[in-house]
Amino acid sequence: MSHTTSGRDASLRERAAKVVPGGMYGHLNAAIFTTAYPQFFARGEGCRQWDADGREYVDLMCSWGPVILGHRHPAVEEAAAAQRAQGDCLNGPGPVMVELAELMVDTIPSADWVMFSKNGTDATTQALMVARAATGRDKVLVAHGAYHGADPWCTPSTAGTTAAERADLVEYPYNDLAGAEAAAGYADGEVAAIIATPFKHDSFEDQEPVDPAFARGLRALADRIGAALVLDDVRAGFRLDPRGSWEPLGVRPDLTAWSKAMGNGYAIAAVTGADALRGAAQTLYSTGSFWFSAVPMAAAKATIETLRDIGGVALMERAGARLREGLAAQAASHGFTVRQTGPVQIPWLSFEGDATLEKGMHWASACLEEGVYLHPWHNWFLSAAHTDADIDRALAGTDAAFAKLRARYGAD
Amino acid sequence: MSHTTSGRDASLRERAAKVVPGGMYGHLNAAIFTTAYPQFFARGEGCRQWDADGREYVDLMCSWGPVILGHRHPAVEEAAAAQRAQGDCLNGPGPVMVELAELMVDTIPSADWVMFSKNGTDATTQALMVARAATGRDKVLVAHGAYHGADPWCTPSTAGTTAAERADLVEYPYNDLAGAEAAAGYADGEVAAIIATPFKHDSFEDQEPVDPAFARGLRALADRIGAALVLDDVRAGFRLDPRGSWEPLGVRPDLTAWSKAMGNGYAIAAVTGADALRGAAQTLYSTGSFWFSAVPMAAAKATIETLRDIGGVALMERAGARLREGLAAQAASHGFTVRQTGPVQIPWLSFEGDATLEKGMHWASACLEEGVYLHPWHNWFLSAAHTDADIDRALAGTDAAFAKLRARYGAD
Repeated sequence: MSHTTSGRDASLRERAAKVVPGGMYGHLNAAIFTTAYPQFFARGEGCRQWDADGREYVDLMCSWGPVILGHRHPAVEEAAAAQRAQGDCLNGPGPVMVELAELMVDTIPSADWVMFSKNGTDATTQALMVARAATGRDKVLVAHGAYHGADPWCTPSTAGTTAAERADLVEYPYNDLAGAEAAAGYADGEVAAIIATPFKHDSFEDQEPVDPAFARGLRALADRIGAALVLDDVRAGFRLDPRGSWEPLGVRPDLTAWSKAMGNGYAIAAVTGADALRGAAQTLYSTGSFWFSAVPMAAAKATIETLRDIGGVALMERAGARLREGLAAQAASHGFTVRQTGPVQIPWLSFEGDATLEKGMHWASACLEEGVYLHPWHNWFLSAAHTDADIDRALAGTDAAFAKLRARYGAD
Repeated sequence: MSHTTSGRDASLRERAAKVVPGGMYGHLNAAIFTTAYPQFFARGEGCRQWDADGREYVDLMCSWGPVILGHRHPAVEEAAAAQRAQGDCLNGPGPVMVELAELMVDTIPSADWVMFSKNGTDATTQALMVARAATGRDKVLVAHGAYHGADPWCTPSTAGTTAAERADLVEYPYNDLAGAEAAAGYADGEVAAIIATPFKHDSFEDQEPVDPAFARGLRALADRIGAALVLDDVRAGFRLDPRGSWEPLGVRPDLTAWSKAMGNGYAIAAVTGADALRGAAQTLYSTGSFWFSAVPMAAAKATIETLRDIGGVALMERAGARLREGLAAQAASHGFTVRQTGPVQIPWLSFEGDATLEKGMHWASACLEEGVYLHPWHNWFLSAAHTDADIDRALAGTDAAFAKLRARYGAD
């Protein structure tokens, strides 16, 4: 049954079409996935979500990243409730801002200071402002096809943006150091920052791990040309390594952008930076009405502490590995050649020879019908709330989906 | 006693100085007010706030606008809690998004549709994107000195921004139609939007009501040149008129940016627009991880309904008028000539001949010491929670502050 034709979701879509452009917009616009996808969601608990028609899903998207401990995690909700009972949006930040900043500086070796904001785009934009203030330069090296947010300078669609807003971006190919060096040469002496995601997680494509030599090369290049190395850890941050996603490589960025999983769904973002950039950061006027609200900061503090205390990364790796192994076995047994890419806790699956993603879309829709919410062309996310039983429940659904796919397309 | 030298606030500032650039930044950075101001706040209830050292204030800033019904208003908190028990940040918006959009379209005559985001800057930026997408043009007419947010294109300090990011802005003088027409002529045929605040509320200056002929003239000018008229109602919205701040003038903008008071402190923003711009709005890729979270939407719905049901604007006008009358009488009795500007519910007071704001700063600090939180160079905000007794309590403090000022400077 399509969600577009009957039930509560259909009726909400009909009403939304009148009062919201296109009925919905942005990354949660289900109209751009497949017709199987519901648009409206009613409830979340742990790693399960329920759509507006009451259908339950094992959730492998985690709201596109923010939910890392599971919905309504008690430690986070208790910390948020305790702060809320005192106050949230006040005439100044709460003491919790200092505690959260101290926790992040203690946890993240590249961080000597923190600036808070609300969304990933705030953080990537603010990081570039710090770099520009520090260097007095304008140009920024950006990997071709990378997503760094939805402000006019970075949104993937150029509708409503001007050429001037992107005039100072110079593209380089990810994982290609010679290409990055050529881009730096092209913008010789004018580069304020090199921005990179910790691995290649562009939509519609297989994910690609960073080549450690490339990461080290970017660090050396930034040093050589006097630019800031900015790690956009908005999507991957807190899932790969609590110290920052390039810390295992020994590569420390000058600035890092954080958001998504930082508050387990509460709206918060941050830039962390090195001492050398502290003075430049102080010169900015960068702010927002809700940036210093205390409740999301209390939630973020509880989220980061809980992830540390329960070994959150290891839990996500365990769940991710179980999912990956299960999917690999199912694909083989149904006769499909698939590619599973990305870290196991931020996975994606694509089908061999499926350039148009037709098979992938069909399979994702079938998973949805089987009570597994994942995405046809954007990476998925696991949380620390995904138990073995949850993964097994998801695998029961994906197995049935592979069977449906085989019935339609035959084996590879 | 200065908050910078002893007590919990001082100790928090000392810790913050190590982990936050400058110890604090943005509009809540108390270091840029006077040394009397506390930096950290612990609690809010109704129209009172308590700083980190437990000092209580009658709050005349309302967290710079967001708090319009008073802190922890039961109707808002109940709606937020009920939604939170179900889910907040999910794989799609909640049904409440549709309900809130319908409520806004029903309430705001210029609104045929709504797009939600998180901060005022998101909304002003998105409004310009819609206008640019609709017109295929780049230039935007902006009033000289007006505040439209803190993205690189609009932040008052140019630190960390590039010339290109402001290359398409053309300034005009507020309340000067000939000046606006000249600016439009300068950018002939290239103007996507004219953006204006509903009245002149620039910092460090007396506020200035809009000349109705100017507002009507901007409307006619936008129509003549095929540009969108954008009302930046982020600061004043919901305090002056629930239908939009220019509705009493009969001037309907094509696009309006909303935020601040919309959710009584919960982080939410919106752009409302006319049907003619719906198609253009649909072409944008404009989004954020937390833009569609259901709790702030439930809070906003309850806030707008409560303001309507209790006659919130009239309550704020009553409180504002009582404050203005009281301050006028006190100033006269202490021998000061003051100017009180802005709508009574978004007031400001300045002293005659006080170009450096020295007297104003001294008086604001004295008010603070007397338990009244107001601002030396930014407009204040009243809420529907300010009762006559609260205003009288505030006036007791301001009276003592005038007396201190007289002891120091003598009467005018």
